[in-house]
Amino acid sequence: MKIAIDAMGGDYAPSVVIEGTSIALKNHTDIEAVLVGHEEKIAPFMKKFGLENHPRVTVVHAEEVVEMGEPSIAALRSKKKSSITIAATLVAKGEADAVVSAGHTGAAVAATKVKIRTLPGIERPAIATIMPAKGGKFILCDAGANTDCKPENLAQFAIMAEAYSRLTFGIKEPKIGLLSVGEEDAKGNELTKETFKLLSKMPINFIGNIEGNDMYSKKADVVVCDGFVGNVVLKTSEGLANTLKGFIKDSFYKNVFRKILGALAKPVFNDLKAVTDKHEYGGAPLLGLKKPCIIGHGSSTPKAVCNAIRVASEFVKANINEKISKKIEDSNITMNS
Amino acid sequence: MKIAIDAMGGDYAPSVVIEGTSIALKNHTDIEAVLVGHEEKIAPFMKKFGLENHPRVTVVHAEEVVEMGEPSIAALRSKKKSSITIAATLVAKGEADAVVSAGHTGAAVAATKVKIRTLPGIERPAIATIMPAKGGKFILCDAGANTDCKPENLAQFAIMAEAYSRLTFGIKEPKIGLLSVGEEDAKGNELTKETFKLLSKMPINFIGNIEGNDMYSKKADVVVCDGFVGNVVLKTSEGLANTLKGFIKDSFYKNVFRKILGALAKPVFNDLKAVTDKHEYGGAPLLGLKKPCIIGHGSSTPKAVCNAIRVASEFVKANINEKISKKIEDSNITMNS
Repeated sequence: MKIAIDAMGGDYAPSVVIEGTSIALKNHTDIEAVLVGHEEKIAPFMKKFGLENHPRVTVVHAEEVVEMGEPSIAALRSKKKSSITIAATLVAKGEADAVVSAGHTGAAVAATKVKIRTLPGIERPAIATIMPAKGGKFILCDAGANTDCKPENLAQFAIMAEAYSRLTFGIKEPKIGLLSVGEEDAKGNELTKETFKLLSKMPINFIGNIEGNDMYSKKADVVVCDGFVGNVVLKTSEGLANTLKGFIKDSFYKNVFRKILGALAKPVFNDLKAVTDKHEYGGAPLLGLKKPCIIGHGSSTPKAVCNAIRVASEFVKANINEKISKKIEDSNITMNS
Repeated sequence: MKIAIDAMGGDYAPSVVIEGTSIALKNHTDIEAVLVGHEEKIAPFMKKFGLENHPRVTVVHAEEVVEMGEPSIAALRSKKKSSITIAATLVAKGEADAVVSAGHTGAAVAATKVKIRTLPGIERPAIATIMPAKGGKFILCDAGANTDCKPENLAQFAIMAEAYSRLTFGIKEPKIGLLSVGEEDAKGNELTKETFKLLSKMPINFIGNIEGNDMYSKKADVVVCDGFVGNVVLKTSEGLANTLKGFIKDSFYKNVFRKILGALAKPVFNDLKAVTDKHEYGGAPLLGLKKPCIIGHGSSTPKAVCNAIRVASEFVKANINEKISKKIEDSNITMNS
């Protein structure tokens, strides 16, 4: 199984990406890596992390890289030789089975959508992120692929994330909630009010609107929203978790007695870290494409990159994209608009 | 100074509202309370909390109450005798100086907008909520009054919240950030991209887009967003803070040693509670009206109601609405659209 990896994607690329790939290859002997990036720039790191002449590594040269500040569509048009475009093309041609990128999210979405294409009936792919909650986990979809959405898009996100949650969590009837500003049907903005009507008619276990606080008490297995709201939720949660940890740390530093307590309480904070560590999952799938694409966090660590590669291989092995496609066909809903 | 209080507003009304009013009257001898609600329903609580025949309490009867599930505009039209409408009317007529409600937010916004009216040049009022951050506080605006907004609305929220932050935090040049999904100008949805252009031209210290995680590191003094996103941020933050506290608590209960540690670390958790306690501020002002209106959380405690009444009295004393009005005139921007 071959995974195409955007070696230039991420805040600390290519170093972190190549280190993460090296760990993934050690841990998973069935994975072959196709590193896509600027040969000269990645060469020193290939050497550093022992990937030079590695039997399961191929390098494909990419002259360009999409920088974080660039508009996605313009970058896709002007930089035809960017690492993400070439990686997506390899998958489209069948020369790799999945793509992993921790770079510019918008560019990864645009490149894979154009090159790999969406599944029949799906207008737009969406990012599905696994989030921690009280007594379990939930999937947030879309977590940032689509900033402006129509109700039909959100309905498709619901179908895709429902299929993904069945496969990932093994739940028979995943509870689908629509993120809004009140539980009542009448609450929400124009987008969620229209989406509410669509979801109510669909053959899924739609539990209605859920509010931001309900997500973390695990009221739903899947929380559906547009990518702007989803990304704000994701980043807000990250920021708040870090700030609260900081408050606790500062408070434990107030005096010597508390410092000792803090040191003794370390296992508690390790428990907390295990739940809130964004690098644990490593990447979030872009659902709705014909082949798997895993999007990593821009600030991915080597461990996160390694986990993203593992998730990509699991998607390939479990044929998740085909299963989502079947689910969409079975639900017999034409949502192209 | 007379504060009109919606005695029927909130999940635990009228009991909690009347208890909170009773505390406020004890703590602030310059405040007179006008309790607006169903006389028969509030009578037992008036007795219980010692407000019967209180020299600084008047009761104004309201036959109806807007229930949490009702659409705001429909409720405003059909329930002309609701407690929030009557409370707003008292302020409009000059029979009270400010209004406080912990009830249906949409109904409070609609009733005060129609009865009290907005300041000249302001199309829509917005909720400004004070949020905790690393090393300080920031104002989130709009935190839930307007679910669907135009760029001009967000520009007005920026002006109003800027004036409020000057007055509340005493900052000379408050940093104004636009909540978006990336720091770069090109990132965002259609609404934020257009708003970015407007804010760039305004005589404020606009620092550009900020992401969810930046809010909690206090990158900006004011974070501007539409009311749907703002409310999702508010509720998500509440839910996550509670869940993380729950994780820590559970982890401290894992064994006897940890239980002892947890008991010893209580002052640390009291520190944390002081920062994250939503009842500390009690209420958030609805900026942009001719007279002060303070919106409380639906789940307000008596302490929260008391604090909301205190905030209302501070708004009256400091003439904050007039100052916002002057700031808008001075900025010489016509934003009505």
